[in-house]
Amino acid sequence: MMNFRTDLALEMRENQEGEIPGVEVTIEEDETQGITVTWVSIETAEGATTMQKPIGNYVTLEAPVMKENDPQIHEEIAKILAKKLGRLHKLEENSVILIVGLGNRNVTPDALGPQVCEKILVTRHLGDEVPHELKGKLRAVSALAPGVMGITGIETAEIIKGVSEKIKPDLIIAIDALAARKTSRINATIQISDAGVNPGAGLGNRRTPINRESMGVPVIALGVPTVVDAATLVNDTMEAMLTAMKDHAPQEEAFLNMLGGLQEEERYHLITEILSNGNMFVTPKDVDAVITRLSNIIANTLNISLHPGITVEDVNRYL
Amino acid sequence: MMNFRTDLALEMRENQEGEIPGVEVTIEEDETQGITVTWVSIETAEGATTMQKPIGNYVTLEAPVMKENDPQIHEEIAKILAKKLGRLHKLEENSVILIVGLGNRNVTPDALGPQVCEKILVTRHLGDEVPHELKGKLRAVSALAPGVMGITGIETAEIIKGVSEKIKPDLIIAIDALAARKTSRINATIQISDAGVNPGAGLGNRRTPINRESMGVPVIALGVPTVVDAATLVNDTMEAMLTAMKDHAPQEEAFLNMLGGLQEEERYHLITEILSNGNMFVTPKDVDAVITRLSNIIANTLNISLHPGITVEDVNRYL
Amino acid sequence: MMNFRTDLALEMRENQEGEIPGVEVTIEEDETQGITVTWVSIETAEGATTMQKPIGNYVTLEAPVMKENDPQIHEEIAKILAKKLGRLHKLEENSVILIVGLGNRNVTPDALGPQVCEKILVTRHLGDEVPHELKGKLRAVSALAPGVMGITGIETAEIIKGVSEKIKPDLIIAIDALAARKTSRINATIQISDAGVNPGAGLGNRRTPINRESMGVPVIALGVPTVVDAATLVNDTMEAMLTAMKDHAPQEEAFLNMLGGLQEEERYHLITEILSNGNMFVTPKDVDAVITRLSNIIANTLNISLHPGITVEDVNRYL
Amino acid sequence: MMNFRTDLALEMRENQEGEIPGVEVTIEEDETQGITVTWVSIETAEGATTMQKPIGNYVTLEAPVMKENDPQIHEEIAKILAKKLGRLHKLEENSVILIVGLGNRNVTPDALGPQVCEKILVTRHLGDEVPHELKGKLRAVSALAPGVMGITGIETAEIIKGVSEKIKPDLIIAIDALAARKTSRINATIQISDAGVNPGAGLGNRRTPINRESMGVPVIALGVPTVVDAATLVNDTMEAMLTAMKDHAPQEEAFLNMLGGLQEEERYHLITEILSNGNMFVTPKDVDAVITRLSNIIANTLNISLHPGITVEDVNRYL
Repeated sequence: MMNFRTDLALEMRENQEGEIPGVEVTIEEDETQGITVTWVSIETAEGATTMQKPIGNYVTLEAPVMKENDPQIHEEIAKILAKKLGRLHKLEENSVILIVGLGNRNVTPDALGPQVCEKILVTRHLGDEVPHELKGKLRAVSALAPGVMGITGIETAEIIKGVSEKIKPDLIIAIDALAARKTSRINATIQISDAGVNPGAGLGNRRTPINRESMGVPVIALGVPTVVDAATLVNDTMEAMLTAMKDHAPQEEAFLNMLGGLQEEERYHLITEILSNGNMFVTPKDVDAVITRLSNIIANTLNISLHPGITVEDVNRYL
Repeated sequence: MMNFRTDLALEMRENQEGEIPGVEVTIEEDETQGITVTWVSIETAEGATTMQKPIGNYVTLEAPVMKENDPQIHEEIAKILAKKLGRLHKLEENSVILIVGLGNRNVTPDALGPQVCEKILVTRHLGDEVPHELKGKLRAVSALAPGVMGITGIETAEIIKGVSEKIKPDLIIAIDALAARKTSRINATIQISDAGVNPGAGLGNRRTPINRESMGVPVIALGVPTVVDAATLVNDTMEAMLTAMKDHAPQEEAFLNMLGGLQEEERYHLITEILSNGNMFVTPKDVDAVITRLSNIIANTLNISLHPGITVEDVNRYL
Repeated sequence: MMNFRTDLALEMRENQEGEIPGVEVTIEEDETQGITVTWVSIETAEGATTMQKPIGNYVTLEAPVMKENDPQIHEEIAKILAKKLGRLHKLEENSVILIVGLGNRNVTPDALGPQVCEKILVTRHLGDEVPHELKGKLRAVSALAPGVMGITGIETAEIIKGVSEKIKPDLIIAIDALAARKTSRINATIQISDAGVNPGAGLGNRRTPINRESMGVPVIALGVPTVVDAATLVNDTMEAMLTAMKDHAPQEEAFLNMLGGLQEEERYHLITEILSNGNMFVTPKDVDAVITRLSNIIANTLNISLHPGITVEDVNRYL
Repeated sequence: MMNFRTDLALEMRENQEGEIPGVEVTIEEDETQGITVTWVSIETAEGATTMQKPIGNYVTLEAPVMKENDPQIHEEIAKILAKKLGRLHKLEENSVILIVGLGNRNVTPDALGPQVCEKILVTRHLGDEVPHELKGKLRAVSALAPGVMGITGIETAEIIKGVSEKIKPDLIIAIDALAARKTSRINATIQISDAGVNPGAGLGNRRTPINRESMGVPVIALGVPTVVDAATLVNDTMEAMLTAMKDHAPQEEAFLNMLGGLQEEERYHLITEILSNGNMFVTPKDVDAVITRLSNIIANTLNISLHPGITVEDVNRYL
């Protein structure tokens, strides 16, 4: 059993060597922009067990340029993401969509979901009051940021399920801040998946999954890793150091192998004990600016992929 | 048909002279603190029509001292309110309560509901994890601030109804910012009612009522007037002036009577036309500090009345 | 002595009939966009006394389209404003600029200044660390939102003066929320002036002026009316009604004239008494969205006019 | 040269074995509450060099109970701190105090300073308008949260110096979020010092110190460690592990000693390289609630120690 925390299927895959039965991986690279899109498909129960993730498709867009403040590249990323979203889930003309912003708006690296919600072109309440020039260009979209269980006393899945049974969406899209294992992926990676959101994601402690099974409608999860679990970070850095040291102290290889290989689980346990507070996370200093920028990219992605005949310019105009 | 906007039953009553069939009014005064509590009971359909408010009890606590920043008086007000709440709705030992914070957290005078929610001692999710010394002292309380329809695309009543059907509370308490008619009542008055929340309250434009009928469980509405509708303010000030002028220009009485009495509706219509923007409200300058203070009073009221054996000190300790 | 509150020179001018010695008015209209720019120049002490405003130029841009959420029009407005700003004050290549965001960030209609500050491309601290491709394209710009006196205990003018003496800017630009007299001008008007900011503007109660004399460097004030003083609104609406009624009740003209003309000051005094709380303001319901939008327009105006060779696109890229 | 980041003099002392010439340490323990107060006095230039901290007194209050939400203990801590503050700097009856809240209000763990400022009983602007019953009970206190250099373009020290020269305080108190080395000290420790604030504290990158020398008036720094530098955390955890492993693998002692001792600096360098992003910090998940609570404790400490004859209850009343 693994303790390392990551919400990225890509990193679960990287964690294992050789082929994994029941798991397919396809990589698409965009050479001009340095954007890599990886499709990880978990197709069998065996694959799900090995990956410790439910059956489904996990599309990861990695783009170091995402960190740069370049609106043109951000628009490009939004367009690529919108296409992948369209492949993951085909919308009908009259599809009704509920967007859910998970996370705590008062903790900066967990505020991604609530911030996206504030930038969504919501239209479901307009009914026939849609401006004339927009007729036929909009789907019925709603957006809810319910808040975390510590503040509401209600599991997020219960709130979403209750609202969903009232407004009967054809698709739920859940936005969340995630935890990655590699610091280089922080704020530079977007994962979309049709497998829903798993418990314990990101900073939160959500226990009931939000997925097609629990909600009764398809669920797309869209997340960005904004933090690394502190114990995971320590462990991985240590491992990287041990590897590096083998070159300097080859005669100690046997010992290092023991350290590096055998006792992985024990080591992680020891680290969390040393850290004394297991609930700590690692995040970059400029996290406030980064969350603002990422929420723009994701809101744009959703606004243009959910509303047919709407462009980024239109969004700015009618929001 | 009246256009003047007020969410206070007390002001609807004041608006009419003589006795109103089907409407009972009882006044309780606390001489030492200058606090007045008025019970308005609308008991018949006829009374409801005259009052333009649904059948039910409306308890209004007026306390000019509420504006002063005196924690002792605020605690006193919280205790009085808690008692009235207990008379309006009798809780069972195992009652489950859902608190709903209506309004827009981004518009200062409308943020009362969301701010109260953040100060509630929520407990429903604790289940058996309640600390030992609190066993038996807490009811299952949850709190949700769903956001306004313009941001969610969903009517607030739909959200509450959906969540309510999931978590099955025995009582819903809806907190809202209201509109009053008299500026002297702004931020100095609290109304609690078992008649639910009516559409169009305060700053918002909520159309479906949140009440026992729509929700299927009892609903207590708790509100504070934080604004006056601009057109109402102009009209009432003008009326007061006309009255004052009668003394100075008694020979013009016939004309003034015409102005002051006959054309009330027409006059209001004219004012809104002159104002050119009907969606304006009047609020005091220190509204940010006032909302913070009021949300403390109301959260304290709820925390001590919903949790048996919990005092204000306990609340501070466990929140 | 007049009591009506307006921070717009344009409205002070409108308030008086006929020519005013020492005051020049020029109107420029942009027919395609419906934008009107009015230059009011107060040139003599006599003009200043009549206008109750200091000597200087006051440029008012009125654009009802400002309220519409059209990014193209907003960009157009930013460009027009930038030109007028360039005429009011000629910058040197090496000019150092200090932008000051006045007002209280916690009261929505007063948060314009602080919100603009967060969107300014500040560069003064970069020194030689300016990215290579931006060399020669940036002036040294800094931005400070000092907070209101009730929270700091310090007059805003003192803070600005102190900081200004340290960083020695060639120009101070003060952004503020203003009070207008006409509701139609709320959030649809921008005033820029080289006469500085006068005491008591907008919602605040700033007593020491921020101008060239007090600061020792040129001061440009840039403001948007976001509120109307409640008593002023009541008074003006009443006046408009009395005018309207003359047609309906011509025989009462003598009385109406008395009401409407003679006792203006007394009437205002009576109104504030009736309102019982003199510190109330009127503002539209969607004030949060409006302030966000206006702060974008103004920040764009400043970013493109202060940094030579920088476009709106560049701003987005480097902010 | 050491790279480990800590802003606590106590941790710099712990880092070295044996006596340090020019550095005195006194420990006071409060057995009933589990509160430890340590005075570290750096008395000579030699001591300052060894400690890598300027000459002065550093008082550290450690209280694991600080993390518990117990208002009585928080009040107790505020009273102890107020006494230590009184010993560090003796105020005169007419002393004028400027409180400065350092840090970025938009990044939760860095928002301590700005949040404290909002809870200070500022009085300097009242002058003779002090309520009658408070005459003689208040000192002239002001509070400024200037924002970080990345947003203002101005070094914080420049802003404070400029304002200080205007309002001429007798004492500046600078509040800041700090970085500690041990996670157990996060949010459970308060350091006050008369040596001012050093560059690079906490999350920020402030370069010019704020101290008696730079400001021309005495400066007290009051800080709470809210984060651990990620690279420091990894290093220290690794060191603790190596120590633990000596027991399990004593035959490798020579190798472990080399790892643990010799190459400390090189190791840290290697870690930061592996982390690839040097600007990351570690903080607990409930950081929003913790910062709110800590800012209450510190504001109370300042309110009761700066205003003679004012109690915590009075503060609540007049704030």
